[in-house]
Amino acid sequence: MTQAGSPTSASSQFAAGAAEAHSAQAALIALDWGTTSLRAYLFDADGQVLDTRASTAGIMNLPRPADQGGFDAAFEETCGAWLNDTPGLPVIAAGMVGSAQGWIEAPYVDAPANADALVAGIVRVDTASGVTLHIVPGVLQRGDLPNVMRGEETQIFGALGEDVTAADSGKRALIGLPGTHAKWAAVQAGRIERFHTFMTGEVFAALREHTILGRTMITPDRPDGEAFLRGVKIARDRGQAGVLATIFSSRTLGLTGQLTREQQPDYLSGLLIGHELAGLEAVLAQQQNSLAGQSLRLIGNEALCERYRVALAQFGCTQAELVKHATERGLWRVASQAGLVNPAAQAARAG
Amino acid sequence: MTQAGSPTSASSQFAAGAAEAHSAQAALIALDWGTTSLRAYLFDADGQVLDTRASTAGIMNLPRPADQGGFDAAFEETCGAWLNDTPGLPVIAAGMVGSAQGWIEAPYVDAPANADALVAGIVRVDTASGVTLHIVPGVLQRGDLPNVMRGEETQIFGALGEDVTAADSGKRALIGLPGTHAKWAAVQAGRIERFHTFMTGEVFAALREHTILGRTMITPDRPDGEAFLRGVKIARDRGQAGVLATIFSSRTLGLTGQLTREQQPDYLSGLLIGHELAGLEAVLAQQQNSLAGQSLRLIGNEALCERYRVALAQFGCTQAELVKHATERGLWRVASQAGLVNPAAQAARAG
Repeated sequence: MTQAGSPTSASSQFAAGAAEAHSAQAALIALDWGTTSLRAYLFDADGQVLDTRASTAGIMNLPRPADQGGFDAAFEETCGAWLNDTPGLPVIAAGMVGSAQGWIEAPYVDAPANADALVAGIVRVDTASGVTLHIVPGVLQRGDLPNVMRGEETQIFGALGEDVTAADSGKRALIGLPGTHAKWAAVQAGRIERFHTFMTGEVFAALREHTILGRTMITPDRPDGEAFLRGVKIARDRGQAGVLATIFSSRTLGLTGQLTREQQPDYLSGLLIGHELAGLEAVLAQQQNSLAGQSLRLIGNEALCERYRVALAQFGCTQAELVKHATERGLWRVASQAGLVNPAAQAARAG
Repeated sequence: MTQAGSPTSASSQFAAGAAEAHSAQAALIALDWGTTSLRAYLFDADGQVLDTRASTAGIMNLPRPADQGGFDAAFEETCGAWLNDTPGLPVIAAGMVGSAQGWIEAPYVDAPANADALVAGIVRVDTASGVTLHIVPGVLQRGDLPNVMRGEETQIFGALGEDVTAADSGKRALIGLPGTHAKWAAVQAGRIERFHTFMTGEVFAALREHTILGRTMITPDRPDGEAFLRGVKIARDRGQAGVLATIFSSRTLGLTGQLTREQQPDYLSGLLIGHELAGLEAVLAQQQNSLAGQSLRLIGNEALCERYRVALAQFGCTQAELVKHATERGLWRVASQAGLVNPAAQAARAG
């Protein structure tokens, strides 16, 4: 077992007691299984999280190769103890585990897609120990600029929460998922209508680590909010030539003594996020919409979402709500809708 | 002497004869000394190139460290034989050799800049063997998006040729220099008025080698013009969300079977160059100008300039002339204007 594959319990200090306390109540195991990490949640029948486990055994980082039982090993290491305590627990999983490089491919469902479409697209795979994993499919938006998501669809349904059954279910919502490949999804009546992918996080890393821009950068002790904001404003007000042009200013502002080496990383981050939002604004404008006054939700790393909130305010959007626990809420919701945890629904489905 | 620093003669098969033939006529040594290469030209008094030498001894690739005489060694290896044949030849150099990391720093001159400003900014450095190098400065455009060039200013003056003394010297010209850091300069009355830098070439390499986009790419046997054109058109017609968004389609068109692995490199290249030209078009629009109908000149690698010609045609610009030998013509011109090779001018300058 490699260190990379070692699971760690988020509640290890309570592990023994918690295991006893929840052993009678556990009702679902839910997995957020991505490229570089695997997070597992143990739910009770009311949808409360009883325990969590986190591992670095993402699908590209399994404890042993996939064709040598790597997926089984990662699953056993992470969830074996829960299943020993409560045999027969249903298991649901979302994320890259359902990609062509995953345990089994769960083909994309087409956008617009609601939770029912996700449920209908679930693909099952049996583990070596005879447990059935229910893998949630990703969503594909066709066209000459196709888009795909895998894992985010589940987070989005988690962020929607009970909205879809509320009176205002017809309301449009804009949901942002900042990250390596940032997603922006337009949701209406419980359906993912359309979405965009911005490679902002990965481009930032590539620029910083593999271009001339990184050579003059020094990582500051703490994020420089002013440099970040400056980058956002340049992208918003002076970004006409596009990001391929503006990024060079990270270097030239340094050459001309207007930006220190420590300020350059946050300035570049602000530039890229600013260009992402300017691009999103341009797309919204085509639909007679805009970021200004928009009430939207953000899902993801809190510090990164806070950067987006600051940047969004520069585009007139001051109502950006950070949604926490969207991943586990989404997994619970899809599992419920699939009848994995709701006895009534299960009976209906069997009949 | 490392292999990297070994000079090679472009005319080695004629070397002995040529050396004798031109020894009486040689009038100037001109160096195009960049980060990864050093090119040397031997001129006669009429501005004809008698001989050339090329070496990989760019300033970041010297035969030995700079503080151990690396610049002297590279210069001797490349030009020593010429100076032995014709002692006392004047020497001019342009490019990164004049940067802060170069042999000696030739501080930038401010844009707008004409050839006189470049001449006034020449900085001299003496080699170990007592030869004086005249280093041409780069050009700086100040502002909240500063821009710098070093080497390109000399190429631009080479591309202008005799235009500046012609009757239409007041005419505006747009000059493009595709490459790692593509430059677009607006020139009027023999002056570089303003310019932009697009990091297109370096971003392409970083995306291809260090992001998920490269993982599905296979280098084709020959460039795929159709895939390239498709990328250009997507950037032009569907590029509103910006390059951070459109580049993801290189992957998703692959995932959906619409773009083969071999087509993806040229498609991504077309996307980036298309976004560069769309950005340039947006900047021109602010000046009540456009690419359509523009008569412009391109300087640089022929195959790359041909890609730009194809892409420019998609923006209505069908008059893009490839200027050859701009580098050596520019070096000759600045040297002439500096009085290094023109006896009359030298006399005037001394008086």
